[in-house]
Amino acid sequence: MRARYKPWAAELIEAHPEIVIPEPQKLKGKWKEEFGNSNPLHIEAGSGKGRFITGMAMANPKINYIGIELFDSVIVTALQTVLEQEEGIPNLRLLRVNAQEMESFFEKNEVDRLYLNFSDPWPKTRHAKRRLTHESFLKLYETVLPKNGEIHFKTDNRGLFEYSLTSISEYGMLLKDVSLDLHANEPEWNIMTEYEEKFMKKGQPIYRMEAQYNS
Amino acid sequence: MRARYKPWAAELIEAHPEIVIPEPQKLKGKWKEEFGNSNPLHIEAGSGKGRFITGMAMANPKINYIGIELFDSVIVTALQTVLEQEEGIPNLRLLRVNAQEMESFFEKNEVDRLYLNFSDPWPKTRHAKRRLTHESFLKLYETVLPKNGEIHFKTDNRGLFEYSLTSISEYGMLLKDVSLDLHANEPEWNIMTEYEEKFMKKGQPIYRMEAQYNS
Repeated sequence: MRARYKPWAAELIEAHPEIVIPEPQKLKGKWKEEFGNSNPLHIEAGSGKGRFITGMAMANPKINYIGIELFDSVIVTALQTVLEQEEGIPNLRLLRVNAQEMESFFEKNEVDRLYLNFSDPWPKTRHAKRRLTHESFLKLYETVLPKNGEIHFKTDNRGLFEYSLTSISEYGMLLKDVSLDLHANEPEWNIMTEYEEKFMKKGQPIYRMEAQYNS
Repeated sequence: MRARYKPWAAELIEAHPEIVIPEPQKLKGKWKEEFGNSNPLHIEAGSGKGRFITGMAMANPKINYIGIELFDSVIVTALQTVLEQEEGIPNLRLLRVNAQEMESFFEKNEVDRLYLNFSDPWPKTRHAKRRLTHESFLKLYETVLPKNGEIHFKTDNRGLFEYSLTSISEYGMLLKDVSLDLHANEPEWNIMTEYEEKFMKKGQPIYRMEAQYNS
């Protein structure tokens, strides 16, 4: 997700290294120390403006969260949300990096769950390997998740969801839970992303799955 | 699928033992002899009025088909379709039996593919074991299909499809192909069932999957 150019974004991000971690590779294997507790760590690859990850962090204070987003102009909105809270969001950190490099920031078993929300669908077949549920990404996530670690994935894009069901199945992962219209029976714990609200209001179904590594 | 009581149905069925096989257990292990060739055998559990299985048989003369349906008043419509064809449908047989007894009619490896179309959704959780994609049925089908045998499944029922995706995954089967709106890009080989046409006309999505045993 890109947003309009915000020249002040980089400055605000650099002024808050306690929230947007400037050199996350230095914390690889040390995230429990960074958070000051041993709570589970859930991360979101491509956290955009952060509505999901900030909402989850505020709703679940006993879980630590990290939102990963490459673009200054987008991640700055998540940072602003944190700054607007009277006491900040102590169980949330943001990384302004490419999620494809997550091996540099996390040890194996250091992440307990991965969220993917409304990832780019890359609809052309020749771009299939860029989809975040392509085999190569499933392999990447496995390097930081534990045995039986989970991926929770939401999208409005039918083609991406169809692809992801087969890709995840062929990788040998288990489908634990699937919803083909999340808002038909919205679970009380659901936190909507910006995209999700937009598509839900248009009456388009939101697809969701929980998938588990099986090794 | 039940239809109104047709007192003449049983008589018409009994008059055509060459199409609706009266004692299929006697042909267990001998279906190639019955069809007079070694072509693959595809069966449909719950074939209803037979629009799918008769359409498939006419479209694919090099494949043998068997439609299984318990109710006289329904299977008789499939029989009538066969009788309406000038030369019948030589690669099709019908069984007026309960598909749950398929082990009595087919040897292991004798069936090459199983079709399930618009099965009863049994929406209540306490009826989950009656759904035709419940673990116990996946086990049953495995007794007649070969290693890597396939199930092709269509439904308009979202809840049943969601359940089936997880049930099939947890059974250790592979999802080879999934469509969450079959008629958005209808494949040219698709043969519609009676239900399918009805729900498609209402604008409801039809869900479809191809799943493969993985042992």
